[in-house]
Amino acid sequence: MKNKLNAEIIAIGSELLLPEATETNSSLIARMLFSLGVQVQFKTVVGDFEKDIGRAVQTALKRARWIILSGGLGPTEDDVTRRGVASVLGKPLAFNKKVSGQLQKKFKARGRLFLKIHERQAWFPQKAILIPNKTGIAPGFILKEKDSFLISLPGVPSEMRQMIESTVSPFIKKKRGAESTLFIKRYKTFGISESAVNEALKDLMGAPGVTFGLLAKKTGVEVSILIKEETPQEIKKALREIEARIKERLESFIYGENDETLEGVVGRQLKNKKKTLAVAESCTGGLLCHRITNVPGSSAYFNSSAVTYSNEAKVKQLGVPFRLIKKYGAVSAKVAMAMAEGIRKTSRSDFGLAVTGIAGPGGATAHKPVGLVYFGLADQKGLCFEEARYTSDRETFKWFASSKALDMMRLRLL
Amino acid sequence: MKNKLNAEIIAIGSELLLPEATETNSSLIARMLFSLGVQVQFKTVVGDFEKDIGRAVQTALKRARWIILSGGLGPTEDDVTRRGVASVLGKPLAFNKKVSGQLQKKFKARGRLFLKIHERQAWFPQKAILIPNKTGIAPGFILKEKDSFLISLPGVPSEMRQMIESTVSPFIKKKRGAESTLFIKRYKTFGISESAVNEALKDLMGAPGVTFGLLAKKTGVEVSILIKEETPQEIKKALREIEARIKERLESFIYGENDETLEGVVGRQLKNKKKTLAVAESCTGGLLCHRITNVPGSSAYFNSSAVTYSNEAKVKQLGVPFRLIKKYGAVSAKVAMAMAEGIRKTSRSDFGLAVTGIAGPGGATAHKPVGLVYFGLADQKGLCFEEARYTSDRETFKWFASSKALDMMRLRLL
Repeated sequence: MKNKLNAEIIAIGSELLLPEATETNSSLIARMLFSLGVQVQFKTVVGDFEKDIGRAVQTALKRARWIILSGGLGPTEDDVTRRGVASVLGKPLAFNKKVSGQLQKKFKARGRLFLKIHERQAWFPQKAILIPNKTGIAPGFILKEKDSFLISLPGVPSEMRQMIESTVSPFIKKKRGAESTLFIKRYKTFGISESAVNEALKDLMGAPGVTFGLLAKKTGVEVSILIKEETPQEIKKALREIEARIKERLESFIYGENDETLEGVVGRQLKNKKKTLAVAESCTGGLLCHRITNVPGSSAYFNSSAVTYSNEAKVKQLGVPFRLIKKYGAVSAKVAMAMAEGIRKTSRSDFGLAVTGIAGPGGATAHKPVGLVYFGLADQKGLCFEEARYTSDRETFKWFASSKALDMMRLRLL
Repeated sequence: MKNKLNAEIIAIGSELLLPEATETNSSLIARMLFSLGVQVQFKTVVGDFEKDIGRAVQTALKRARWIILSGGLGPTEDDVTRRGVASVLGKPLAFNKKVSGQLQKKFKARGRLFLKIHERQAWFPQKAILIPNKTGIAPGFILKEKDSFLISLPGVPSEMRQMIESTVSPFIKKKRGAESTLFIKRYKTFGISESAVNEALKDLMGAPGVTFGLLAKKTGVEVSILIKEETPQEIKKALREIEARIKERLESFIYGENDETLEGVVGRQLKNKKKTLAVAESCTGGLLCHRITNVPGSSAYFNSSAVTYSNEAKVKQLGVPFRLIKKYGAVSAKVAMAMAEGIRKTSRSDFGLAVTGIAGPGGATAHKPVGLVYFGLADQKGLCFEEARYTSDRETFKWFASSKALDMMRLRLL
């Protein structure tokens, strides 16, 4: 049996199947559906081929209540959505004289010639309900087929958005006849592995009405919860309960929610406490600084940073004693702390944060493997360090190491 | 009948169906298939549900020769790809003792605890050919089902990439048993707008057998060409002809091809000429340095960098004369050049490259708008500067400005 609140998005366009494609329309559609309490269960991308579109629609009719098609409604040879839909539903295309008149008017108003090919946009499957297109040319259409609704929209984002807002969204709302009952929230963690998070939350994952998702990113593991209830009040209640439990289990591993970033959180902490920070990096190569300065207003608490790859630069720019490098190596706890203290002093900041490690692929020694990193943190009270090892490609390594440095700062400022 | 050279990608993950989703794996897969002459005909996205995965696989088996699944091979509750595939193909999961041993070894080497749940990753559908995972944990697998091949890969991009390169790509090449008749190539430009590129190439765009694509990115405009011919020889000929014309039109605006980056090209130039570079940034906040150090082996030509937000840091760390800042402002050609010369001298490098500007949203003055940037370049012969203005959000601004700085260096090294 078909779920009454599920949807399938079919994005149409041969360019969407090429290696470099980025498809953004379905995100727009998913957001609209979500806000109406309808969840996307399948998403299909097909090229501009009548047969492939027909196949995709046929499959969707078997498994989705709401089927939203985007693209393929234009006037050119490769715009074949109308034909693909018509043939698979056995509802032949019919010429709509009124729409044809409207199209001609639109072209005239824009000072463009109305050609024979443009007339195509006035043909629709029989019994289709038309969706007016106020910003562009081609109207969209809605068809009821057994217990599914098929909604065909143009691929131009601005036209699609307008049609969703003025026609599609009210239509679904009316047919669906209930309030929004879906809610989503993400909790962002750092310093804990995906399996450890899974272990910590395992017994919560079966809770009715809540779907958990775990995602290991280079900035930490994200826990997302999706709540499904009958009323907004029930959603609030369920959120309160589940959130309390998640926070109890993951404690200070959680650094933020939804779109919050580690660098944003550290920035807020520094601002609130009226403290300043300076950074000395080697293996993260500027990424730590880049992330900190991505936060608007960061110049209020962030003065300067040094990226010191060579030993000479560590000595000269940061004042790290050369004997420390000689005795312990550039990748060591002692040098990390000396770098942190060095940048703190030169920049006259409250905190100095330093990273030194081996990003790879080269640079390993007999005692120090690729991926080894030391972190140093200095303030006026003293110094501390941490050690970690990340076995990943060069850029991921930089992300892990800069995240760990930011997290060290965050925990210090809690 | 099934096309022998068509494929379907099935991306698995409930998070991929949420409004904020960005799905990048299929692009990676499409590129690999493309380079082997196999074109993606359908793309499906499903959530982490055994049943939905099964349904998607069932549909794909009817219409695609090559079916590539990504995601859902991890150890947690929501990793159900193995079960989804096994149940729909009627090939029960079997425990692989050898893989289990390998997994335990991997965990031990990383100093992590091997838990019961990790054992899940040692179960595979019967008759599956395993795909070793050299960078991560879970192996992938290949199954033959009638005239289709089903290839299941993990969702982690770095692991997937490695597995494609070392196992999947050679496998498809061998089974496909023919030469490639599809070819795609990208030319990367900087310093020219999308409409100017379009104007320059307009008359080439109608050529038979070649499809053009233009894409404006934050690292410049990309021109892609897709060539479809009957034989590899014909492809070579067509490429030679079209490429000569593109290069003739776009000249030195082209900095590289396919996956080449500005930072990679500059790195190669410096290495070849045995020169070194140091960088001083303010508004790009470390991104310029981050990009330079993303290139493996960059420590050979890159010693150090300074990110100086405050005037004080510019004076103290770079030796910019305070009177210059007072007279011309920190965002000025004079200060950009003084920063470049300053970092060149402290780091004893051949080149000094500097950026100073207003990233926004704050920081504008009566005479200097948000987005204004100056670039300085110093070598032993002297100094030069450039000016630009980028009106975009903060992070895009940083990308534009750091690209422009790299491009200035590139053109100087031509």
